[in-house]
Amino acid sequence: MRDDYARVRAATEALVAGLPAEDLVVQSMPDASPAKWHLAHTTWFFETFVLRPAGGGYRPFHPEFEVLFNSYYEAVGPQFSRPRRGLLSRPTGAEVLQYRAHVDAAMHELLAQDGPPWLGERVRLGLEHEQQHQELILMDLLHLYAQNPLRPALRASAAPPSSRPAPSLRWCLGPVGVREVGHAGAGFHFDNEGPRHQTLLRPYVLASRCVTNAEYAEFVADGGYRRSTLWLSDGWAQVQAEGWTAPLYWYLSEGTWWQTTLGGPRPLDPHAPVVHVSHYEADAFARWAGARLPTEFEWEALAEAAPVRGNFVESGRLHPTAAEPPPRPESQPAQLFGDVWEWTASAYLPYPGYHPPEGALGEYNGKFMSNQMVLRGGSCASPRDHLRASYRNFFPPRARWPFTGIRLTKDA
Amino acid sequence: MRDDYARVRAATEALVAGLPAEDLVVQSMPDASPAKWHLAHTTWFFETFVLRPAGGGYRPFHPEFEVLFNSYYEAVGPQFSRPRRGLLSRPTGAEVLQYRAHVDAAMHELLAQDGPPWLGERVRLGLEHEQQHQELILMDLLHLYAQNPLRPALRASAAPPSSRPAPSLRWCLGPVGVREVGHAGAGFHFDNEGPRHQTLLRPYVLASRCVTNAEYAEFVADGGYRRSTLWLSDGWAQVQAEGWTAPLYWYLSEGTWWQTTLGGPRPLDPHAPVVHVSHYEADAFARWAGARLPTEFEWEALAEAAPVRGNFVESGRLHPTAAEPPPRPESQPAQLFGDVWEWTASAYLPYPGYHPPEGALGEYNGKFMSNQMVLRGGSCASPRDHLRASYRNFFPPRARWPFTGIRLTKDA
Amino acid sequence: MRDDYARVRAATEALVAGLPAEDLVVQSMPDASPAKWHLAHTTWFFETFVLRPAGGGYRPFHPEFEVLFNSYYEAVGPQFSRPRRGLLSRPTGAEVLQYRAHVDAAMHELLAQDGPPWLGERVRLGLEHEQQHQELILMDLLHLYAQNPLRPALRASAAPPSSRPAPSLRWCLGPVGVREVGHAGAGFHFDNEGPRHQTLLRPYVLASRCVTNAEYAEFVADGGYRRSTLWLSDGWAQVQAEGWTAPLYWYLSEGTWWQTTLGGPRPLDPHAPVVHVSHYEADAFARWAGARLPTEFEWEALAEAAPVRGNFVESGRLHPTAAEPPPRPESQPAQLFGDVWEWTASAYLPYPGYHPPEGALGEYNGKFMSNQMVLRGGSCASPRDHLRASYRNFFPPRARWPFTGIRLTKDA
Amino acid sequence: MRDDYARVRAATEALVAGLPAEDLVVQSMPDASPAKWHLAHTTWFFETFVLRPAGGGYRPFHPEFEVLFNSYYEAVGPQFSRPRRGLLSRPTGAEVLQYRAHVDAAMHELLAQDGPPWLGERVRLGLEHEQQHQELILMDLLHLYAQNPLRPALRASAAPPSSRPAPSLRWCLGPVGVREVGHAGAGFHFDNEGPRHQTLLRPYVLASRCVTNAEYAEFVADGGYRRSTLWLSDGWAQVQAEGWTAPLYWYLSEGTWWQTTLGGPRPLDPHAPVVHVSHYEADAFARWAGARLPTEFEWEALAEAAPVRGNFVESGRLHPTAAEPPPRPESQPAQLFGDVWEWTASAYLPYPGYHPPEGALGEYNGKFMSNQMVLRGGSCASPRDHLRASYRNFFPPRARWPFTGIRLTKDA
Repeated sequence: MRDDYARVRAATEALVAGLPAEDLVVQSMPDASPAKWHLAHTTWFFETFVLRPAGGGYRPFHPEFEVLFNSYYEAVGPQFSRPRRGLLSRPTGAEVLQYRAHVDAAMHELLAQDGPPWLGERVRLGLEHEQQHQELILMDLLHLYAQNPLRPALRASAAPPSSRPAPSLRWCLGPVGVREVGHAGAGFHFDNEGPRHQTLLRPYVLASRCVTNAEYAEFVADGGYRRSTLWLSDGWAQVQAEGWTAPLYWYLSEGTWWQTTLGGPRPLDPHAPVVHVSHYEADAFARWAGARLPTEFEWEALAEAAPVRGNFVESGRLHPTAAEPPPRPESQPAQLFGDVWEWTASAYLPYPGYHPPEGALGEYNGKFMSNQMVLRGGSCASPRDHLRASYRNFFPPRARWPFTGIRLTKDA
Repeated sequence: MRDDYARVRAATEALVAGLPAEDLVVQSMPDASPAKWHLAHTTWFFETFVLRPAGGGYRPFHPEFEVLFNSYYEAVGPQFSRPRRGLLSRPTGAEVLQYRAHVDAAMHELLAQDGPPWLGERVRLGLEHEQQHQELILMDLLHLYAQNPLRPALRASAAPPSSRPAPSLRWCLGPVGVREVGHAGAGFHFDNEGPRHQTLLRPYVLASRCVTNAEYAEFVADGGYRRSTLWLSDGWAQVQAEGWTAPLYWYLSEGTWWQTTLGGPRPLDPHAPVVHVSHYEADAFARWAGARLPTEFEWEALAEAAPVRGNFVESGRLHPTAAEPPPRPESQPAQLFGDVWEWTASAYLPYPGYHPPEGALGEYNGKFMSNQMVLRGGSCASPRDHLRASYRNFFPPRARWPFTGIRLTKDA
Repeated sequence: MRDDYARVRAATEALVAGLPAEDLVVQSMPDASPAKWHLAHTTWFFETFVLRPAGGGYRPFHPEFEVLFNSYYEAVGPQFSRPRRGLLSRPTGAEVLQYRAHVDAAMHELLAQDGPPWLGERVRLGLEHEQQHQELILMDLLHLYAQNPLRPALRASAAPPSSRPAPSLRWCLGPVGVREVGHAGAGFHFDNEGPRHQTLLRPYVLASRCVTNAEYAEFVADGGYRRSTLWLSDGWAQVQAEGWTAPLYWYLSEGTWWQTTLGGPRPLDPHAPVVHVSHYEADAFARWAGARLPTEFEWEALAEAAPVRGNFVESGRLHPTAAEPPPRPESQPAQLFGDVWEWTASAYLPYPGYHPPEGALGEYNGKFMSNQMVLRGGSCASPRDHLRASYRNFFPPRARWPFTGIRLTKDA
Repeated sequence: MRDDYARVRAATEALVAGLPAEDLVVQSMPDASPAKWHLAHTTWFFETFVLRPAGGGYRPFHPEFEVLFNSYYEAVGPQFSRPRRGLLSRPTGAEVLQYRAHVDAAMHELLAQDGPPWLGERVRLGLEHEQQHQELILMDLLHLYAQNPLRPALRASAAPPSSRPAPSLRWCLGPVGVREVGHAGAGFHFDNEGPRHQTLLRPYVLASRCVTNAEYAEFVADGGYRRSTLWLSDGWAQVQAEGWTAPLYWYLSEGTWWQTTLGGPRPLDPHAPVVHVSHYEADAFARWAGARLPTEFEWEALAEAAPVRGNFVESGRLHPTAAEPPPRPESQPAQLFGDVWEWTASAYLPYPGYHPPEGALGEYNGKFMSNQMVLRGGSCASPRDHLRASYRNFFPPRARWPFTGIRLTKDA
């Protein structure tokens, strides 16, 4: 656990190592947070939910930080207004690193002792929480850079084109009938992945890989963004209001599509999965393609036996790439994990019998079960060991700044 | 069919008979429409989907009405902007009645002949559509009147207090296991009620009646609107942004709660079901009460066998009233139909295998399957013969101006 | 005074005689009010400022009207929210006419007696106030009709094309040096027209007539709305934000300019003065034309001796028309009164020594002396006997829905 | 000129020396800009208006900076959106300092040669421009710090309390009759200070010093912010909409007023001039006090002969302080320069005969002559040698973040 703690905490700092202080403080939109805020909030999490309740004479780093870096835990107390996080030029990035060091020292001390009974579980939650924010840091930095005509790159070497063409699409048959879903076993999982329960699956086939840029560009060229009848009503309103004509971060340069990536501007890679589409776009594309999005359980039923392999943050690409050739057996779908989070047709709702934990940590997941859609699988910005088949990510259907993509399904 | 047509069309006009022209033209918020617009749009529906395709020399009443009274059918063509419907002082209410008479005459002629094969089904859809707008007229008029310090009443005699106390709450056991849901049989139903399909029900009990004003007032008195941890995150944001402290149309007068109704201002009836609450309020109340909202299928499974009896628009009350004494057998829930639409825990999504019809009428229901929650049962403003156990109403979770209430559920 | 009272009150009602109730209730934008509201507010003025303080047992028509029809008099009490005036379907138009009759009866009785010493002056103020609202009724109805694709006309016979060409433009020399401005003499005037005081005039010439549609169309054709350097910064921001490409109510139909008028849609009359331009447009046009707008005193110095003649509401045109041939002597400007209110280069500020009257009526003019520009001369929608050379009208520089036009000036 | 250039440029950098990079990049509201942007824009000014037109092989530092750091010069070309300036994490502060060094090197070279004939005048304009931005940097930093619960200070030693009590208020008689105003003589002045011209002054007296915090606190305690009739209509609307209850940066702590300053939080200094009030508040205070604001010419006529002495940025206080004892002769007002910009009753409009210069620099002042009020005198954040009696500053009447205060006037 001490090693895990050190490793995960270091990974967060490695993401922003070498960046100018300016990149860490700006908030590019209300949905995003400054990288500095993520660095501090994940530290606040350990301070608030581990060090303070563990007692033992822990001295908080700064009395105001309890409010400044509380994200949304009403039971802990008031929060500094979310859309105003970017107004905090202080504490500086350097001070936030001191805050991290202060908490890390106390945590190392605590983890060396016989801690309270809940310690292991709580620390593990803090580390998984931190991994979620690692991905948010990457999402938010990309959004920030994309506002800047200077087109900065996080890593100039990242986001190379796919080294192989995308394999041709196959349809993989899913299991049918009453089936267990939700997390099973002893490993870590978030509360929203359980209770494990039965669901009823009807005959369906799942695409063997994600939709590619080349396929999505056909939809664009076919007037996909101008044909209202392809869209959900709220989606069409969004297309009109925001003037969407392509995925977020696509732009035309001398007649060809380019894409802003964490490796800087790149020509659109036709073989890579389309990324940075909203649920509305995913749904409209599926309708155009004569298919539909899978439910979260259709996805999970086929992913449960698959290994968690793929293009994760560890690859250093920080961008999706073409799917691998078909796995063995060929009847299994590829690219289920990594590359892009896959929008499902499922609203983010509690599983039968779900009860959030007591106390402030009950606010972690449960209170967001409204107006959001479930995504599955993880992305090129997710740490590999953070993912599993039962993992439920969720965003409002309009969100495009996560690494979100599309996998199709059909009734069998 | 001719009789049905005449009856339903006349019922719409009866709702607004005797009202001053001013009441029919004002739009009190973007979600609402002027009563005049409802009168015209329901007529447009027959003109557009029956008379025009039926051919036979029908002369449209006015060339501009195709655009003016198109609600949201993109496949038909452009629409006059929804939030600006209230800017149309012309056509006047009297002209809209002429429009209705013009279309009614053509419809009567058409219905007297051998029409096209689709005629019966399409006319039936138009009549059910008109019944939906009858309820919208009542909702929208109440919202309009509630803006006015003169506190007008639609019918001064409506909304009398409940003549009996609400029966005590019992918990009725629901069926368990794989079960068929969705519309069955030959009668009319909307496309979104099918296909009939299997679902899996876990042990649950459903409250024997809706939550009463007295019960809800306890929640209010207990600080329900000030305790963030009772609420979904989006709900709490709404409470803050809009300053909610009680259901819509409740107000305090000299220390006691009153309610604006279609019968004018009334002291809060403790026995009547609480009405005009959002999904967020229903969800927060349930959490406070140690219960939850039912899924739409938990509701439907217990309602399927129940008779469609209750307090509908035909009662003339135009307001919910206390539930009847327990039905026979006592194990069955009461008040399932009428009084208030009951918020469920189910997002409004397509049933497995659902496909909207071809053409413009495919836009009727399907494209709204996003960001909305399902309601069941019908209200005191619904026509009785418009309802059935499989009927799915839907509104965004923030909506409070429909006649919406709460029924609790628990795991068994 | 009794005759004046009867005449002015009847003139207001004549403006809307025969209109459907629907036209009187709608509020087409926050700056505009429903005609019904104008009918009631002008009545409220007599009730509040004459009948109540006169005592004598006057019984107010309705207790709520004191709030409902108070425009902005904080010293009288609270006001129903201005942008929500259109939500009041009640009192109906018919009830407002009863309100008018009730107040008129009491006023006639009062005027037949020996009233309080302030009576005559106060009634006169009420009548001048009512005349201002007569013009507002016409402005607001035109704005309402212009939202409607059915293109209603107030009077189909109004707004005929000019029967003569506009005379060629001459430059009329103004007086120079220290000069008295502001209202002089015993007649009625608003508080903001005084005190009469000295000002210093530098050599200038004033255009002999207003800018015509033909002249303004040249500015449009020359890219006037696309050349940022012609505009004040706030004006250019407005052009961008609102997408202005021509005066309000101009529209292109098959390549030629048309105009929405109170007589319905009309081809643009090249000889008539341009109307419905903002101060920003007037200023940009003047810059493009190598001229400038006059100060209010430059205008007044040349208007003081001119007769109040021109195209007023009494002509029934309800639209500007070409200027008359040069007056005698030819050195005098024409078209100073009527047709269009002429934007000046003067901010609306108090004259030296200005003090608003004591009490609520001190709010009539004084508190608006911020962020507005002065207009002079009156329009085709103003009653002739309401105008004079010292009259100061005022609107924010972005306003386009009044009957506003342009007269040019140059340094001599 | 070379010395001036070096001195002014160094003064800008000295303001932010030692600040963390985070403080320089954040934009705390659309009206404010990041300090980094000010550092770059003032540099862009020399690059665009001196180095490029001077020719001589100057190589621009970066091709994108022409757009990124153009403030509002439409004739130069497009501008990066003003409210989004805070989204530019790049160029970093360090890179902006390199940009400054690059331009400074080229400027020093150019100034060492025989430059074009316009060189001296243009460089002088650039330096005065830079001094304006020095004050903006201080205003914007204070606004930024005031958003932060950590309450940072720019200089902990700044903003000490006044070392003497404010002298008692006297009324100083102004000159009367026709009088010349506007800039005279050969020194530098902005285009908007001329042409010098005659104006007519009526008998008036000007307060001998600015309104103090103690005096303003009486207005607050007397319900000044709750009495609508003291306010201009637009001002009252602002009070309501923004919830104003005191000047910007005042706050109550345990029953006493404190103030956020560039020296950190301080108890309100009763003797210091009130600062950070809008024109609306200045106007309401004057009305409450039975006085009025001076016109800009009333102010200028008494300031013309006064020495430019007072509390400027050079004092290092960065905050207003109590006025000096009466000057000799006692009939002259004190504190005319420095401490606070004094709101006048004059709208910001062109002087008679004003024409902006040709070309892009014509946009410097002229296009803002709309919706703004004139302020005179300079503040504790202004460089002393930047000010003079004819200097016209201007802000919208709602602005409170400049160092703005109040001087009263009365008719004599």
